[in-house]
Amino acid sequence: MTETMDVALGARSYSIHIGAGLLDVAASYRAIGARPRFIVSDSNVAPLYLQRVAAALGVPAVATLVVPAGEETKRLATVERVLDKLMEARFPRDGVLVALGGGVVGDLTGFVAAIYQRGAAFVQVPTTLLAQVDSSVGGKTGVNHPLGKNMIGAFHQPLAVVADTDTLATLPPRELSAGLAEVIKYGLLGDAAFFAELESNVGALRALDHATLVAAIHHCCHMKADIVARDEREAGPRALLNLGHTFGHAIETFTGYGTWLHGEAVAVGLCMAADMSARMGWASLDVVARTRKLVERAGLPVLPPPGMTPGDFRTLMMHDKKVAAGHLRLVLLRSLGQAVVTADFDAQALDATLADTCKAAQATT
Amino acid sequence: MTETMDVALGARSYSIHIGAGLLDVAASYRAIGARPRFIVSDSNVAPLYLQRVAAALGVPAVATLVVPAGEETKRLATVERVLDKLMEARFPRDGVLVALGGGVVGDLTGFVAAIYQRGAAFVQVPTTLLAQVDSSVGGKTGVNHPLGKNMIGAFHQPLAVVADTDTLATLPPRELSAGLAEVIKYGLLGDAAFFAELESNVGALRALDHATLVAAIHHCCHMKADIVARDEREAGPRALLNLGHTFGHAIETFTGYGTWLHGEAVAVGLCMAADMSARMGWASLDVVARTRKLVERAGLPVLPPPGMTPGDFRTLMMHDKKVAAGHLRLVLLRSLGQAVVTADFDAQALDATLADTCKAAQATT
Repeated sequence: MTETMDVALGARSYSIHIGAGLLDVAASYRAIGARPRFIVSDSNVAPLYLQRVAAALGVPAVATLVVPAGEETKRLATVERVLDKLMEARFPRDGVLVALGGGVVGDLTGFVAAIYQRGAAFVQVPTTLLAQVDSSVGGKTGVNHPLGKNMIGAFHQPLAVVADTDTLATLPPRELSAGLAEVIKYGLLGDAAFFAELESNVGALRALDHATLVAAIHHCCHMKADIVARDEREAGPRALLNLGHTFGHAIETFTGYGTWLHGEAVAVGLCMAADMSARMGWASLDVVARTRKLVERAGLPVLPPPGMTPGDFRTLMMHDKKVAAGHLRLVLLRSLGQAVVTADFDAQALDATLADTCKAAQATT
Repeated sequence: MTETMDVALGARSYSIHIGAGLLDVAASYRAIGARPRFIVSDSNVAPLYLQRVAAALGVPAVATLVVPAGEETKRLATVERVLDKLMEARFPRDGVLVALGGGVVGDLTGFVAAIYQRGAAFVQVPTTLLAQVDSSVGGKTGVNHPLGKNMIGAFHQPLAVVADTDTLATLPPRELSAGLAEVIKYGLLGDAAFFAELESNVGALRALDHATLVAAIHHCCHMKADIVARDEREAGPRALLNLGHTFGHAIETFTGYGTWLHGEAVAVGLCMAADMSARMGWASLDVVARTRKLVERAGLPVLPPPGMTPGDFRTLMMHDKKVAAGHLRLVLLRSLGQAVVTADFDAQALDATLADTCKAAQATT
């Protein structure tokens, strides 16, 4: 049961292959052809899958690099390490990098590919739910700066995405929940019916029910492929995919990369975006309650870390890439399933959301 | 006497402004509009021109960074330093970087712009002959890796190029000669009549005769703009612009960045490419002699450093970005003014060129 869908981007179009057992099948990587290949993976994923992917790709042992697992790895120093290894191996510009792992490995490897000899090709082999539904598709690559998340990067589309759903069986429950945050995001931002389905299915998803998981991955990839095809470089509708991320990035930067998982911070961000939308009279209080409840049932936090103040949020949010001409832009909800990007928000609503959310978080200590 | 020409690249099109005194004129920078701006310059150029450009741009003192002059600066550590400064200044994604200096500052700043928040705009203000005729136009940006030149980079077109020909008056003679290497390259690769003009004018150019310099800059920019418009990402004819560069990069890497100027290494590369082309029965021996003579009259070397062996050349040339599927590709001359890119060259001709050239260099010690 393999499904292939296309991301339509003219000369940069590519296919997403989704199915069980794709990792081991040479045909999954047919877009690479006979070109040299080099696998980047991390210390969690490599012991499980590196040899199998290398066998399917016919890679000699030298053409791999394993980086430490975790968000800390996603920084310029690691980019330099991968570049050194490629240069030492005399890896050619017409070679293909293969990113085997979660969002960190995908973002890092894609960015290295973007800048290696002014642009080499790469293939995404996402092994986490978060990477399969979100980060592996769409060509956003990059690393973090100590002062802000994803501040260094490039738009660089992969040659193909190979999502083997069997890999989710080895995913720790906390990582699975983190991926569900992005799944919930898709429902909230553009598909109320899908959100309602998730309310029914969240238990099955956490129990790794295969058919339910695969259906959810398909749905999210379709939504993302459609949005990316309409707006590759985030001039317009693509920014909707950042729902929850401006609040979430502030939490990640505040706590230091790696303390909270990206999906956990996004989960809190979704709740805060819903809360603020309701205070502006857009989304109903019912949407806020349903969002919080679904986030909680997915095994995710609904409040930021207790020590974080409204001032911390404001400072860190102004570092967001969506800040334009000095104005913060936020993704908010007109209603369930209908997000908008706006710089024209009610500042008092933001203040109230930050104050009440931080106060509630403080009260939990 | 200002001339403006356009590089036609669809949505990424931009103008090159060439003329005396453009640096001080606010209108030169009109493409920036009212957006925030940040100037990067180097320790040679900043004392001469930074305040004047800042005044024309209306930049506050904080929005500048001066890096050490020289090829050593063109590396990933400097990229990180510029990124740190931008992040500390909370420079927004819709801001515009301004590269004030020669090829090193332009390549570095353009690359930072390419990866800052996944892509910010930048303006080139080239102050060397080499940058005005070549590196500031066409969107090639990047830095060196210890194992190879320009191995880390991106294609990222500037928003505008502002070439103030008055700045050449302060250029050291050695730098002027280095720029002439690229000027000679344009004649050799695509315009025999221009080559013949240079044979008449090289003295006037070295004496900084203004009208002759400006005419040469115009001619080279026109040729480059035309080639880049036809082949932005070097899939085809653009590779011709690398005439002399595969040999030249090997010399630069061998000697360590900063010992030889880029243009000096390219000058030797032009002589070697002509020599090899003649050995293959393509260009005549007369072309070889005329190339060497013009290079010498431009104040440039015709032989590599004495310690360098054919083996050194071979090893370092295989690191070239034009290596594809394990095969070296070279830019060679069918005749004067007609270059071709080929992987189908005579290996014995290459061997003979390397052996004889290195032997001749050795004999000079």
